[in-house]
Amino acid sequence: MNIDNSILLEIFKDISFTKEESHLIVSKFEKIRLQKGDTLLDANEVVHNQYYVSSGCLRTYFMDNSGKEHTLQFAIQDWWISDYTAFFTTSKAAMTIECIQEAIVYKISKKDVEYLYLKIPKIETLFRKKMEKGYAALQKRILSSLSQSAKERYTSFISAYPNIEQSVKNYHIASYLGITTESLSRIRKELTHN
Amino acid sequence: MNIDNSILLEIFKDISFTKEESHLIVSKFEKIRLQKGDTLLDANEVVHNQYYVSSGCLRTYFMDNSGKEHTLQFAIQDWWISDYTAFFTTSKAAMTIECIQEAIVYKISKKDVEYLYLKIPKIETLFRKKMEKGYAALQKRILSSLSQSAKERYTSFISAYPNIEQSVKNYHIASYLGITTESLSRIRKELTHN
Repeated sequence: MNIDNSILLEIFKDISFTKEESHLIVSKFEKIRLQKGDTLLDANEVVHNQYYVSSGCLRTYFMDNSGKEHTLQFAIQDWWISDYTAFFTTSKAAMTIECIQEAIVYKISKKDVEYLYLKIPKIETLFRKKMEKGYAALQKRILSSLSQSAKERYTSFISAYPNIEQSVKNYHIASYLGITTESLSRIRKELTHN
Repeated sequence: MNIDNSILLEIFKDISFTKEESHLIVSKFEKIRLQKGDTLLDANEVVHNQYYVSSGCLRTYFMDNSGKEHTLQFAIQDWWISDYTAFFTTSKAAMTIECIQEAIVYKISKKDVEYLYLKIPKIETLFRKKMEKGYAALQKRILSSLSQSAKERYTSFISAYPNIEQSVKNYHIASYLGITTESLSRIRKELTHN
């Protein structure tokens, strides 16, 4: 078991805990180092864990019947990642999570996080608030997919994930925006010429 | 103030409370009756409340600069509705919520729900779980907008909201799916002929 107090400083930076609480929290997380190309979660695997990204970059994608990949999420420092539909119901992943830039993540299981909620209610409050922010962000993304042009969506993406373009492939971004890589190139050219 | 124990039976049906807790909970909700066409929340209004739908149907939509409406959400019995981005941060609504079928909703303010979280922690657990379900549902919707055809999205919509077609206009559904009303008619015709 990897015990590392940086978990407290990163994930729970705004909360103070007793020594016992701190020890309990740290004991429930596991630190994982990932190389570019590593798979953190495979489609069809039962999902027991969620992951906090301490550094690096990961993406969650869905592969459809024709073999086409659709990127649901990128996760960079201070983001959480999992196949949440499967995590919340402890069922099989529909998605794959891959490391796209060398990363350190902290893993915690559903069972353990729920134990922490019971033992330390302010952790439940923190996760409830994180979930609210995540919910609002997803609503915003749906709204943007309904009401914005591909160019506007690309511009929003770049401001939400600054510097991400160095670590991801063109088809990752295109498949996140729901456009072809050709459209992405065209949009980039247009923005450079403006 | 409308005090109505049906709130406990509907919203909190799986939880048991003491008499004092029940009284406190009920005192924080207000029952509102809405007619078709009523506006529950106006864009640009500061959002203090969220609403539980007891009966009827509402929708949240965003109007873009060109005056085009984009439907983010429909809410039927047992759903919650608000402009959540604005609600969580107590800021101005970007969206409008209108009643599209005579409805009864229970309103609760952010301040009051947070007070309940503090006084009755199992309410925070309930809302945390609801938020998780909502988050997973939005991820699923994003995935479907990336990977499914308009026809598949329409079929999913109909199974998620059975009987909704009687209460909503064609452009409500089309603007929820991100397609034109002409495409919607074409899809319906195709499905009827299959």
